[in-house]
Amino acid sequence: MLGNLYVPFMVLEDMGERKGTKLAMLEALKQQVWEANLELPKYGLVTFTWGNVSGIDRESGLFVIKPSGVPYEELKPEHMVVVDLDGNVVEGNLRPSSDTPTHRVLYREFPDIGGVVHTHSPWGTSWAQAGRSLPAYGTTHADYFYGEIPVTRPMTRVEIEGAYELETGNVIVERFNELGLDPNQVPGVLVHSHAPFVWGKDAHNAVHNAVVLEEVAKIAARMLQINPNTPAMDQALLDRHFLRKHGANAYYGQK
Amino acid sequence: MLGNLYVPFMVLEDMGERKGTKLAMLEALKQQVWEANLELPKYGLVTFTWGNVSGIDRESGLFVIKPSGVPYEELKPEHMVVVDLDGNVVEGNLRPSSDTPTHRVLYREFPDIGGVVHTHSPWGTSWAQAGRSLPAYGTTHADYFYGEIPVTRPMTRVEIEGAYELETGNVIVERFNELGLDPNQVPGVLVHSHAPFVWGKDAHNAVHNAVVLEEVAKIAARMLQINPNTPAMDQALLDRHFLRKHGANAYYGQK
Amino acid sequence: MLGNLYVPFMVLEDMGERKGTKLAMLEALKQQVWEANLELPKYGLVTFTWGNVSGIDRESGLFVIKPSGVPYEELKPEHMVVVDLDGNVVEGNLRPSSDTPTHRVLYREFPDIGGVVHTHSPWGTSWAQAGRSLPAYGTTHADYFYGEIPVTRPMTRVEIEGAYELETGNVIVERFNELGLDPNQVPGVLVHSHAPFVWGKDAHNAVHNAVVLEEVAKIAARMLQINPNTPAMDQALLDRHFLRKHGANAYYGQK
Amino acid sequence: MLGNLYVPFMVLEDMGERKGTKLAMLEALKQQVWEANLELPKYGLVTFTWGNVSGIDRESGLFVIKPSGVPYEELKPEHMVVVDLDGNVVEGNLRPSSDTPTHRVLYREFPDIGGVVHTHSPWGTSWAQAGRSLPAYGTTHADYFYGEIPVTRPMTRVEIEGAYELETGNVIVERFNELGLDPNQVPGVLVHSHAPFVWGKDAHNAVHNAVVLEEVAKIAARMLQINPNTPAMDQALLDRHFLRKHGANAYYGQK
Repeated sequence: MLGNLYVPFMVLEDMGERKGTKLAMLEALKQQVWEANLELPKYGLVTFTWGNVSGIDRESGLFVIKPSGVPYEELKPEHMVVVDLDGNVVEGNLRPSSDTPTHRVLYREFPDIGGVVHTHSPWGTSWAQAGRSLPAYGTTHADYFYGEIPVTRPMTRVEIEGAYELETGNVIVERFNELGLDPNQVPGVLVHSHAPFVWGKDAHNAVHNAVVLEEVAKIAARMLQINPNTPAMDQALLDRHFLRKHGANAYYGQK
Repeated sequence: MLGNLYVPFMVLEDMGERKGTKLAMLEALKQQVWEANLELPKYGLVTFTWGNVSGIDRESGLFVIKPSGVPYEELKPEHMVVVDLDGNVVEGNLRPSSDTPTHRVLYREFPDIGGVVHTHSPWGTSWAQAGRSLPAYGTTHADYFYGEIPVTRPMTRVEIEGAYELETGNVIVERFNELGLDPNQVPGVLVHSHAPFVWGKDAHNAVHNAVVLEEVAKIAARMLQINPNTPAMDQALLDRHFLRKHGANAYYGQK
Repeated sequence: MLGNLYVPFMVLEDMGERKGTKLAMLEALKQQVWEANLELPKYGLVTFTWGNVSGIDRESGLFVIKPSGVPYEELKPEHMVVVDLDGNVVEGNLRPSSDTPTHRVLYREFPDIGGVVHTHSPWGTSWAQAGRSLPAYGTTHADYFYGEIPVTRPMTRVEIEGAYELETGNVIVERFNELGLDPNQVPGVLVHSHAPFVWGKDAHNAVHNAVVLEEVAKIAARMLQINPNTPAMDQALLDRHFLRKHGANAYYGQK
Repeated sequence: MLGNLYVPFMVLEDMGERKGTKLAMLEALKQQVWEANLELPKYGLVTFTWGNVSGIDRESGLFVIKPSGVPYEELKPEHMVVVDLDGNVVEGNLRPSSDTPTHRVLYREFPDIGGVVHTHSPWGTSWAQAGRSLPAYGTTHADYFYGEIPVTRPMTRVEIEGAYELETGNVIVERFNELGLDPNQVPGVLVHSHAPFVWGKDAHNAVHNAVVLEEVAKIAARMLQINPNTPAMDQALLDRHFLRKHGANAYYGQK
């Protein structure tokens, strides 16, 4: 399946005895990331190739990401590209997504996340282009995002003309630090003039959260038309809904 | 099909001679409630597992409801949970929907209803989050809802931090009592900062009404964009349309 | 296929020698009207049974219409009901649509039309409920409707409480007369607080025009959000587009 | 497949030795233009027959275009019409699209383009009817259009009543000249009170750009609802995104 597998020396050394196991794990990860990428058109989050999903293997520090510009209908598991956290392509014959450096920054700075998604899903993109954070207006939002989904500041000319995709990751992290946000509780962001980045415990969960972001962005935009002065929701209600689905006392679902 | 059927003593006693019949009826009810749950994704009312339908057997006082957090594509009739009006699980291996206490209050307080639906259907949810009742603006609304679909008051911190889902039912009933509304004539409500609850004579009819609520919420929201000052519809027209479909003198359909 | 065909004496007499031919024509008309009704869900114009299509045979003065409240997925050609212009059911075992009197008025007063459609298609219904006529804003509109699609005046209590569906037809005709409109050039109307009625040279063409009305209602509503002060389109452009598709000098299509 | 192929003398002479090759090329072009036309309903850009795609063979100066008013479901490759840049039908039994003169002007005045699309795609049409240019608000736009997508001026009565479709092409070209725009960098336009025309390096690429225009028109319209005062995006960001996909230093995709 993988014609010319390229595994650099450094990685081989790291893997030591568990080499066989680890390669198998990455195969499973590639399969999972491929499936998660196919969920993007399934849920209507992408037009053409406007999106990418990655998933990380924290033990080896390697992540798997969609190749750049390959149509979803032609995408196969073996097209997935393996990249390390310094940005080196470790395996794969195709170029990784041009947004790879943004994914890399998120994996380095948000150590608990396992998957990252970027799309231009239309409602989330409308909020991002409007330069407005998405307040928690109701329980749909509160079930998944523990408060407002922030918008980043506009990037500077130097950042845009420099290592743009990497700097995109940096402004996301800067915003979370400024606001003291926990990326595990607010698993997404709106990049100013651009579009959402969303994450989760793995690639599938990140796509799940991306679907939620799109849905709450839609509900909120329409709500503003019905009542432009709606305040953010009550904090106690936000707490209740987030905590009934997350954390030690969650009681939603089958345990 | 039902591996370990648990029928508590109390229920067996109640059923007396008609035991066979009653069990068959609950099997039929489980089938019906399962089908009604599958109508939610069919009509585009739900994303993921954001919805649940229940149906009640008034004779035994037992109702059947979707289990919590089970994806619709995996849902089977035998997953349905049987609950009594005190909230005890009478049959089933899975936890019932976390919204079960809300359903329970509605069945107790609205004695003629036979089915209840909760969804985060996007247009209805936008109205609920906007904290606005949905006035009867036109005949589409009048064909099913005899007047405005009310929004509940915001819940208090004590209610939210207490028996939240039960209190959700209570604020719905409070609102209907305050307004003197007949739940048989206005088969739905918008829970503030949350989403719609809708009911009907059985589980299928409740879903039918949930589809209508979503449709009229959409039409009304767009209408406000076209003419923000539109008043509620003429009372005589509301009467005419509601009564041509409901009550003794109805003349719509095949009798 | 038609179990108990009821053909009243009057009709038989009228048909004279051409009886066989005429019956065949009505069979063809029933087939056509049935197909046209099925186009309503196909084009997304209806939810549940919220729509009906009829088609007329001008020679016999009989029209064929959908029965009331029958779901589209169960509808068969033999369910179609044949009605005369006085409102008598001439053939069929089911009740005709409750809107039959409105269709009847339109056929009597607009002698060139061959098909009528009523739906609660959501964008058109939003305009109707907003009580606003739909101006010709662009060429999409101009290709089918030669100017503004009017909204009727609100009906009076007496009209609503009287022969409501017949009076609905009367206010449509009143509006066309007041404005001096040619129903062949403006094949549709918005009934105030209600929804569109649309017509055409036959049942299929009426549905075609109903699809167009919905599409231009959507485009116009969104356009008002982009530029609320947009004036109606230039008259010369309206003339050009309408006349390149209609009338003696039309040059669109094949011949 | 082509029953009565009509190849005028002039063309035959031009083709000289390469006649066989050239005819084969046009067959391939007809196939491609037919496929590109079928993409219009696939991507939801058209209702009924409201759209057309053409593609040009620059060597012979002939272009292939959809026939007028033929439904997409009946359209076959052999229905495609071959037209020269003077507007003469060179091959085909059907009338070419009534918009053919507009395509012709675009091919003559924009010498690098290879395909043209006209649709009444609803979001783009709403902007065109609103008479507003579509500013570059975000990176989705910047990935394909290097700046604002302009709206043409309203056409004069003389233009409308004269060679209307040809004049439509002229006002497009006039606008591009006035603004000093490169049609290869801004591959589309909004025709005032009408709808978009979009182009590309070939027929497929033109459809691709038409899909993008519709998507960014949608995102921008909704964005204006969220924040009506949003300015156009930062020029450095526009440069970065356009140039990472186009030109010598592009680094998106698989080279």
